[in-house]
Amino acid sequence: MKRREFLSKAGVAASGAVAATALASPAIAQANPEIKWRLTSSFPKSLDTLYGGAEYFAKRVADLTDNKFQLQVFAAGEIVPGLQAADAVTAGTVEMCQTASYYYWGKEPTFAFGSAMPFGLNTRGQNAWWFHGGGEKLMNDFYAKHKIYAVVAGNTGAQMGGFFRNEVKTVADLKGLKFRIGGFGGKVFSKVGVVPTSIAGGDIYPALEKGAIDGAEWVGPYDDEKLGFHKIAKNYYYPGWWEGTSMNHMFINLDKWNSLPKTYQAALQTAGSDTLAWMLAKYDQGNPAALKRMLAQGVQLKSFSEEILDACLKAADETYAEMGTGSADFKKVWEHYKAFRADQFLWQQLTEYTMDSYMMIQQRKQKL
Amino acid sequence: MKRREFLSKAGVAASGAVAATALASPAIAQANPEIKWRLTSSFPKSLDTLYGGAEYFAKRVADLTDNKFQLQVFAAGEIVPGLQAADAVTAGTVEMCQTASYYYWGKEPTFAFGSAMPFGLNTRGQNAWWFHGGGEKLMNDFYAKHKIYAVVAGNTGAQMGGFFRNEVKTVADLKGLKFRIGGFGGKVFSKVGVVPTSIAGGDIYPALEKGAIDGAEWVGPYDDEKLGFHKIAKNYYYPGWWEGTSMNHMFINLDKWNSLPKTYQAALQTAGSDTLAWMLAKYDQGNPAALKRMLAQGVQLKSFSEEILDACLKAADETYAEMGTGSADFKKVWEHYKAFRADQFLWQQLTEYTMDSYMMIQQRKQKL
Repeated sequence: MKRREFLSKAGVAASGAVAATALASPAIAQANPEIKWRLTSSFPKSLDTLYGGAEYFAKRVADLTDNKFQLQVFAAGEIVPGLQAADAVTAGTVEMCQTASYYYWGKEPTFAFGSAMPFGLNTRGQNAWWFHGGGEKLMNDFYAKHKIYAVVAGNTGAQMGGFFRNEVKTVADLKGLKFRIGGFGGKVFSKVGVVPTSIAGGDIYPALEKGAIDGAEWVGPYDDEKLGFHKIAKNYYYPGWWEGTSMNHMFINLDKWNSLPKTYQAALQTAGSDTLAWMLAKYDQGNPAALKRMLAQGVQLKSFSEEILDACLKAADETYAEMGTGSADFKKVWEHYKAFRADQFLWQQLTEYTMDSYMMIQQRKQKL
Repeated sequence: MKRREFLSKAGVAASGAVAATALASPAIAQANPEIKWRLTSSFPKSLDTLYGGAEYFAKRVADLTDNKFQLQVFAAGEIVPGLQAADAVTAGTVEMCQTASYYYWGKEPTFAFGSAMPFGLNTRGQNAWWFHGGGEKLMNDFYAKHKIYAVVAGNTGAQMGGFFRNEVKTVADLKGLKFRIGGFGGKVFSKVGVVPTSIAGGDIYPALEKGAIDGAEWVGPYDDEKLGFHKIAKNYYYPGWWEGTSMNHMFINLDKWNSLPKTYQAALQTAGSDTLAWMLAKYDQGNPAALKRMLAQGVQLKSFSEEILDACLKAADETYAEMGTGSADFKKVWEHYKAFRADQFLWQQLTEYTMDSYMMIQQRKQKL
C-alpha cells in the first residue's frame, strides 16, 4: 500500500462520522490559522536526543508554517507524568505527546508493536512495515480506539542489553536476578526467572549502587554513559533482544488531528520523518565515541549466550501466544507482523548483511 | 553539529553575497507566493520507487504549501537527459533535479560521496554522516561551487552485485569480463581487470542477450526483476560492494534556493526526509517478494569470494589515494568520511549486528 494514501483523504483512519467532521473543518475557511498546542514528552530533558527530538520536531513545524502552528514542548513530569502522556492525549488534556508506544502495553498489549517487539523487526524492517507494509494503517486503526492518531517521529536504533554487576552465562544465572528494564521486555524476561523492575531514569543509579538491583538497561552508549551505570556494573551486554529497534511517535488527539488543515497535517507528518532521520543519525553519530570512552574506563563488552537468547526467544513466542488469546487486536497485528519479519530477515541477510560483515572484519583488522 | 543549524540562517551555505541576496528575497514581501518549478529526474518512469520518489516528493511539497509551491516532474530524457540533470541545475535551465550525486564523479570525484563509495558507509552510517557527522555541510560547501544546494530525498539501501553469465570465483575470472556498472564502482573494478561499460537501463537486456556484455548490475531484486536479466544470466551476486548504500538527492539551483521563503526551504527539506523514509521502506518491502520469485525461476545466489573482495578493497583504496592527489576537495572529504566509517562499523558490530545475526539464523531455522 502507498504510505500516505489513506492519510491524504480527510480522517479516513477514523470512522465516517469523524471524516465528515474533518471535511467541515476550519481548513476550508482558513488555510493557515494560528494554532498553539501543548506537546508533552515522555522523556526528561537530560535525554537530549529523545527529548531533543521533540524540540527539533516543534521547530520544524514552526519553520513549515511561518511560525503559525506552534507546539509548546514540556518534558516528562512538567505538566503530565512521562508514562501517562498517551492518556492525557486520549482525554484531550493535551493535544499531543511524544512517547514510546510500548509504554502502554499493560493497558493493551497491541501498543507494543508501535515501538519494538522482543526478537522483532530491526529498524529498517520496522520502517518498511510501518511505511509500506501496512503497519501504519493497522496501528492507526488500533490507536483510533484510544482517540489517538500516531505519526512516526524518531528511533534510537537497536538498544544495548544493559549493565550487569556479575556475568550472566546461563539461564540458571538469570534466576532471581533483579533487573531494571522498561516496556514489554520485562514480561518476557520474567518467564526465564528474571525479576524485572521498572525504575525511572534518575533512580536507577542509586538502586544499582546500593545493590537493590543487579543490573539495568537504558538505551545505548550515548545515553547510558550519562547515567553512569558503568561506574558500578562493568559487564555491558548485547544485544538488547527486547529492543532490536525502538521507534517513537507523536501521539495526537484524534479529534484535534481531524480538525487540522491538511497543510498542518502534512507539516506534522513530514516533520516527523525529518525528526526520525535526525534522531537516528544523532544516536549513530554519538554512540561510537561514548562506547570508546566507557571501554577506556574498564567496561567489559559481553554477548548474551545462545542458551540465554534461545530461552528468551521461546519465552517471547509463548508471551505472544498468550497475548493473542486475550486480545483480538494483538493476534491480528502479530500475525501480520510475524510474516513480515521472516521476509525482512530473508532479504537483509544477503547484500546488506554480507557487506556489513565484510566491513566489520576489515574494521577489526584496522584496514578501514 | 546540529543538522539544520546552518540551514536556518539565510543562505549561509553559500557566500556572504548570496546571503545578502537571500535577505532581500521575496520571502519578506510574501510568505507563501505561488511558485512553479520544473524538477527533472535522472530516472525513468519504469523505476517506480526511484522516479516514484520524485512524484511523492512533489506531492508532499504541494501538501505542505496548500498547492502554492508546485513542482512539475519530468522523467529522464523528457526535457533533460538523465545524466545531465545536475548540469541543467547548475546552468539554471531547470530549478531542480532528482539525481544520484555519483553520476558526476567524472566531472569531479567529490560528487561520489553524496551517493555511495565502494566499501563505504552503509545506509545508517551515510545518514549519520550526512545529518550529524558534518557530511551535509562538507558536501553543500562543495556543491555550492557548482551552484547546487542538495537535499537528501531517498536511498535504495545496499545494492546487489548483479547478474553474471558465468561464475566468478577468483580475480583471474574477472580479467577482461565485460560488465555493465554505473558510477564510481566501474573505475575501481577496472583496476582488477574488469572492462566496465555504462549502458542505460533499457539497453542492458539486449546487450546481455547477444553476449556483448558478460554481466550487469542494476539495483536490487525489486528493480532487477523488471529488467529481466535473470532470464539470461542465472548467477546473482552479492554484496554490491560499490554500493553498500545509495543515497539520492534533490539538487536545487543555489540562487533559486536562496530566493525561496524559509517556509518553502523547510518544505523541501522535510519533504526530502519524508521521501527518504518512503523510498527505503518501499524497497525493503518490495525486495523480498521479488527475490523469492526470481529464486523460483532458477536464479542462483552467489557471494563474491574473499579474494575478490580483498582485491577490490585494495583497488578502492588506491583509487581514493589517486583521486586525493588530483582534488583537494576529494582529499578533504575522504579523510573526514574515512574516520567516520571506522567508528560506524566499530559501533554497528555490537548490538545491531549481533541481533541481526541471531535473527537471520532463526529465520533460516524457520523459527520466526
